[in-house]
Amino acid sequence: MEDTNRSWYFVERPAGEPDADCFELRAADVPEPAEGELLVRVEYLSVDPYMRGRMRDSESYAEPWDVGDVLSGGVVGEVIESKSDQYDAGDLVTGEGTWAEYSVLDAGDVAPVDPEIADPPAYLGVLGMPGRTAYFGLLDVGDPNPGDTVVVSGAAGAVGSVVGQIAKLNGCRVVGFAGSDEKIRWLTDDLGFDAAVNYKATDDYGAALEEVAPGGVDVYYDNVGGPITDAVFTKLNLDARVAVCGQIAHYNAESVPTGPRKLPQLIAPRATVQGFLVGDYATRFEEASEQLAAWVASGEIDHRETVVEGLENAPDAFLGLFSGDNVGKQVVRVAE
Amino acid sequence: MEDTNRSWYFVERPAGEPDADCFELRAADVPEPAEGELLVRVEYLSVDPYMRGRMRDSESYAEPWDVGDVLSGGVVGEVIESKSDQYDAGDLVTGEGTWAEYSVLDAGDVAPVDPEIADPPAYLGVLGMPGRTAYFGLLDVGDPNPGDTVVVSGAAGAVGSVVGQIAKLNGCRVVGFAGSDEKIRWLTDDLGFDAAVNYKATDDYGAALEEVAPGGVDVYYDNVGGPITDAVFTKLNLDARVAVCGQIAHYNAESVPTGPRKLPQLIAPRATVQGFLVGDYATRFEEASEQLAAWVASGEIDHRETVVEGLENAPDAFLGLFSGDNVGKQVVRVAE
Repeated sequence: MEDTNRSWYFVERPAGEPDADCFELRAADVPEPAEGELLVRVEYLSVDPYMRGRMRDSESYAEPWDVGDVLSGGVVGEVIESKSDQYDAGDLVTGEGTWAEYSVLDAGDVAPVDPEIADPPAYLGVLGMPGRTAYFGLLDVGDPNPGDTVVVSGAAGAVGSVVGQIAKLNGCRVVGFAGSDEKIRWLTDDLGFDAAVNYKATDDYGAALEEVAPGGVDVYYDNVGGPITDAVFTKLNLDARVAVCGQIAHYNAESVPTGPRKLPQLIAPRATVQGFLVGDYATRFEEASEQLAAWVASGEIDHRETVVEGLENAPDAFLGLFSGDNVGKQVVRVAE
Repeated sequence: MEDTNRSWYFVERPAGEPDADCFELRAADVPEPAEGELLVRVEYLSVDPYMRGRMRDSESYAEPWDVGDVLSGGVVGEVIESKSDQYDAGDLVTGEGTWAEYSVLDAGDVAPVDPEIADPPAYLGVLGMPGRTAYFGLLDVGDPNPGDTVVVSGAAGAVGSVVGQIAKLNGCRVVGFAGSDEKIRWLTDDLGFDAAVNYKATDDYGAALEEVAPGGVDVYYDNVGGPITDAVFTKLNLDARVAVCGQIAHYNAESVPTGPRKLPQLIAPRATVQGFLVGDYATRFEEASEQLAAWVASGEIDHRETVVEGLENAPDAFLGLFSGDNVGKQVVRVAE
């Protein structure tokens, strides 16, 4: 092909909050797929909070990016050239690609996109990694029972919004914390949350929680950490489960954050707190994807994507995650 | 009976560290057992860290003491008068009694003491509630596998010393934190711990841990909390389990203690942190008691009691728990 391919490179490790200096847009030749690979024209790319961890120069659950790497992440796009018999040119697929106009994906790691079930960007959200994270984190780690009160932080995000709806489908009372009145309305009016707290409109989270969850908390699905989590830990019921999915409030911390100690609070309720990673459920991804697709197709699970236009705005879309700019899944539209 | 009965009363709630003002020794008539009860002459009584929680004016896992109550706790003693056909005068028994010379116990709640298996005070330690706490907390919550590195805080206490030995019997590598060279020697020379750290001889617990547990921590049995726990949380291995038994470092705190946030540290290792109470295992107490008695009888589990002489010194024995005066189980000898 004659085209050039613009891609975002990771050029500087951030100290604290990342900014535009961490990213550089460069043009290069469109890559060639090798045997078993697909050349994909990227239509949508995903920016996710966990990527902040990849910017650190230390081993974590996601492999760190090296300075000079092309940034990677989930994409949806059209197969332009296939070196695999699994897919043909013209197919819509999703998988792990790059922040770029064209990306080479391993055919064995991609999944087909069916626009009849949902618009393509949903495959980066409710029908992608965030949806599966919600599914396994809530059902396997949170283990909700009908009648349980489930509290979700980051409730209007890609993961939290799905968590709350799955909890409702399981007969739970669901309370969300989110950061704008628009988000609160979405949660309660559209998604069926029983109550939601705009944490930017109060600083007494304990009182807010007492109001919306007077019977205490049976399951806490935590995407955020910080003072919301501090309040929830004072209200854990007997045998409460806390699923630690993310701690976005602390991702940009330059030193180890401090706060109220939580271990003393676990003894009386015999509570269990568990960190988890969706990747550990890889052998069950199909189960989750099928169930989520069924719920989306039937309308039992609603979803929303916040779309930033243009590859050139991908860093801004990523940085906006930390100020809560997104409602639902944050994606970048790279091409039609 | 003509005798008087001296008993310790709880006369003032402490703010922060309790002191002698909280306790008052009063004389009264020896109580009369009702039907189904036993009058017991107390030989040994138990003082335990969890009792600090009963001094608070708030619901917790142990019912709070009211100001004016006789202090209660585990005792070993001789049945003086039996109103039950389960026990006869002269029998040695253990159960929940009072800080007193004579105590009335419910025959249905006591267990016989067999001095052939161990000296009577051991029935307040390894063969009593602390031993069962070690047994269930390690085996059920910690769930150790052979080859695991198990770290125990408060390792030379009544619970910790048993935890470490059960872990050794399960093929683990065992590391203890304790507060004196004498305790360290006991752990490593007599109890078979692989290593032990005198936390009063260093303030770099991270470096100390790196030395004694270079491969990280698979199971952490926490009796203490605070900076030792902070260090351990930085070294949790994949799928690590943390059993939160006690947090004695914080029991006297007058406000909510703060420290490094731990939830962000749980995600990469997918660690599980669980609070528990031994009372929840009541239906399996017999299993634990039989196993512990067998291990003690065979010499596979060693034990030690620190004996304070005289009922009048019971408050000091209790207060000494918070400065780590005891090696093994702290008991008070009330009578021969």
